[in-house]
Amino acid sequence: MKRYEQFADDIAQLIRSGMLGPGQRIPSVRYASQTYGVSPSTVFQAYYLLERRGLIRARPRSGYFVNHHGPSPFYEPVISSPVHESTEVDVSELVFSVLDSIKDPATVPFGSAFPSPLLFPLQRLSRSLSSATRDMDPRVVVTDMSPGNPQLRRQIALRYMVGGLMLPMEQLLVTNGALEALNLCLQAVTEPGDLVAIEAPAFYASLQVLERLKLKAVEIPVHPRDGIDLEVLEQTLARHPIKACWCMTSFQNPMGATMPEARKQALVELLRRHEVPLIEDDVYAELYYGQQAPKPAKAFDTEGLVMHCGSFAKSLAPGYRIGWVAAGRYAQKIERLKLMTSLCASMPAQAAIADYLQHGGYDRHLRKLRYALEEQQSAMLAAIARYFPAQTRVSQPAGGYFLWLELPEQIDSLKLFQMALAQGISIAPGPIFSATRRFNNCIRLNYGGPWTDVSEKAMETLGRIIKSF
Amino acid sequence: MKRYEQFADDIAQLIRSGMLGPGQRIPSVRYASQTYGVSPSTVFQAYYLLERRGLIRARPRSGYFVNHHGPSPFYEPVISSPVHESTEVDVSELVFSVLDSIKDPATVPFGSAFPSPLLFPLQRLSRSLSSATRDMDPRVVVTDMSPGNPQLRRQIALRYMVGGLMLPMEQLLVTNGALEALNLCLQAVTEPGDLVAIEAPAFYASLQVLERLKLKAVEIPVHPRDGIDLEVLEQTLARHPIKACWCMTSFQNPMGATMPEARKQALVELLRRHEVPLIEDDVYAELYYGQQAPKPAKAFDTEGLVMHCGSFAKSLAPGYRIGWVAAGRYAQKIERLKLMTSLCASMPAQAAIADYLQHGGYDRHLRKLRYALEEQQSAMLAAIARYFPAQTRVSQPAGGYFLWLELPEQIDSLKLFQMALAQGISIAPGPIFSATRRFNNCIRLNYGGPWTDVSEKAMETLGRIIKSF
Repeated sequence: MKRYEQFADDIAQLIRSGMLGPGQRIPSVRYASQTYGVSPSTVFQAYYLLERRGLIRARPRSGYFVNHHGPSPFYEPVISSPVHESTEVDVSELVFSVLDSIKDPATVPFGSAFPSPLLFPLQRLSRSLSSATRDMDPRVVVTDMSPGNPQLRRQIALRYMVGGLMLPMEQLLVTNGALEALNLCLQAVTEPGDLVAIEAPAFYASLQVLERLKLKAVEIPVHPRDGIDLEVLEQTLARHPIKACWCMTSFQNPMGATMPEARKQALVELLRRHEVPLIEDDVYAELYYGQQAPKPAKAFDTEGLVMHCGSFAKSLAPGYRIGWVAAGRYAQKIERLKLMTSLCASMPAQAAIADYLQHGGYDRHLRKLRYALEEQQSAMLAAIARYFPAQTRVSQPAGGYFLWLELPEQIDSLKLFQMALAQGISIAPGPIFSATRRFNNCIRLNYGGPWTDVSEKAMETLGRIIKSF
Repeated sequence: MKRYEQFADDIAQLIRSGMLGPGQRIPSVRYASQTYGVSPSTVFQAYYLLERRGLIRARPRSGYFVNHHGPSPFYEPVISSPVHESTEVDVSELVFSVLDSIKDPATVPFGSAFPSPLLFPLQRLSRSLSSATRDMDPRVVVTDMSPGNPQLRRQIALRYMVGGLMLPMEQLLVTNGALEALNLCLQAVTEPGDLVAIEAPAFYASLQVLERLKLKAVEIPVHPRDGIDLEVLEQTLARHPIKACWCMTSFQNPMGATMPEARKQALVELLRRHEVPLIEDDVYAELYYGQQAPKPAKAFDTEGLVMHCGSFAKSLAPGYRIGWVAAGRYAQKIERLKLMTSLCASMPAQAAIADYLQHGGYDRHLRKLRYALEEQQSAMLAAIARYFPAQTRVSQPAGGYFLWLELPEQIDSLKLFQMALAQGISIAPGPIFSATRRFNNCIRLNYGGPWTDVSEKAMETLGRIIKSF
């Protein structure tokens, strides 16, 4: 064994034992060389080896950091048991009371669905707004109404292409955020009263959309790493006349699961056999911490059955309300539904984002954003380890900005929500993520804001309240 | 009789006889004084008298013009007969084929639903976009999400106030254009299968919304000047379980009718007695040619039963997709539906319009816009007189940018649509404005673009095709 290999193994041991936690910085080359009495070039070679092994990662101008697929100090949340029944959805009152609580800027926004707007290049976007609209041909207001700004659609198609997906431009529709896209997709393939397979837990907005469209939910359990349970889904498809399957295949909200590629492929194949369309909600696609973006299920879609919904709201331009759908065989139907619903997405916002994608340095911004989110995740995980009961189970997603916590059984998360709010801290209680109001001892925490003393203090307070149960 | 009174009568006679048409300029003071041998001060006094009588109107720096409520050379369109049945709505295919035809910029857009974008201060708005977003507090992205940008809502409330309406701010919701507002209003008060009273003819988008929400239409005739027929509406309310009434109370699309204030009040009173909510589509409110904006029905609403929907799309910022609703007692329900549908309207667009309303000179722009539309109307009416069959009946709206034409009975407007399109001219055929596909010998023409030789030539061609039937 070479000297540098030995040294690399020592560091790897520190990582495996948890002494060096995920996201933590490992000693600088200078410091390591002095402390361990090895030459700087040996340290370099060792770090390079660890990087190739995927244990650490270099960040430009900041040194090396421990990667996230090391062992977690926490157990994963348990996968929920299947329900096998369809449910009328009625969660809105609960969700709205949670949402209302987040509006006060003085509240610590752990319950929020959004990353902190401080992480986005809003001033640079303002310049794009100005330059993209200054000399805009007025006639585009009519000609580009539908399916959307052609420059923007070309940029989106290019990003798909870089990820290995060739999508026909005419299937790409710009929408008022992904939420509108998801609404339209669901409307395109269902009638009131129909059954839709969704995840449990699921993002509450999807439950609200089902509620609004008077659809029934059939909940499919989600594994914290593998995503939606394909076996249960298969049984459900055999048993019920499911009209659509809606799921988040990467960095699932709230569980954090990212389906491995093989499972995504199996999902598409399974749905294809039953001729059931997949509504793929992929709004966190750009927020991966690994070396590469995970492929969407859409990549395995040969029949046009997958409607892939994306957005710039979480990765670039919150408040601009620009999303899209690559709608496969449903493109024309969805385009028409959109013309009847809201006509088109705001043109200046579309033009600005198209301009930014071309000239603004999107990939540079994304790298910074991903680093920030990963570091914030480490900080929150560390705080959970410090302040929360030892039995707490925590997801450890490889992207996004949510942790899903399973607390000891006696914890009533709705009560916890009220008690925390009284202390100026918002959380998202488990039952809002389920049509059947399960997950009562679970909460979702948002680490999408810069980590500060206030965050740390709030975690300590939360831990104290939880322990008081 | 004084000299100036005599002279005023002479001019009035010219107007009544049609020698001086609506929108036409009357002789300048200098010219009149020389030609008729009267002193300039006599001319001034005469014109002042005619202005007080409402026959002519001064335009700053352009002289005096004939007002529109002079006698028209055309007969009005005939009011349609009532149907007394509810109808499933299924017009979309027809509408989409018409809409598709307008996309080609080479087509003369008489069939368009939009005014020409050349009439709007898009460059000035671009400056507002830039200055309003440059130093925007990033946190507003979360805090202002719903019910919308507070500066914008304050500006809208101010404009209501100037018109004599005091509206509580919390009932004002910003939407993705008026179309979304109308969708949400209808959803807030109906379930699939419900009956909705609408106008006949009605704007086809409202028929499409009914179709999308699986509602049934009960068509109420529209008088070309008085608007929706209150007697028929009253019978309908007595006979059918109507869940909502949707109508355009001013410059109705496509008929052009503006209900007199007393009728608006009677409408609100009638609906109040039946506890039926009114969805008031008032997107052309700012496009009046008279001295004053017509009051909306909302002005007579004491019970919060009227949902008044407005937009900047037709008066200021097409493509920005900013509308609103003053939603009365339904405000909270609509706000929540909106959160489930599209979250919020594009923030930069909201901020830009708020900035423009404060600093951009909206009223100056509106004056220019109204003059332009009124002149374009005169030009189109003149062309109809020149090229169309003498039996043609034409509406003469006091605002907006549409004429409704009733052609001789043998004219099939769907055939006419195809034939005109083959000549590069789009029109809107009558049947798309009715759930029961009536109005087959009617067409809607758009005069929302600057009048050019191309427009004149297109009218001549249209007239020739019509006469060929």
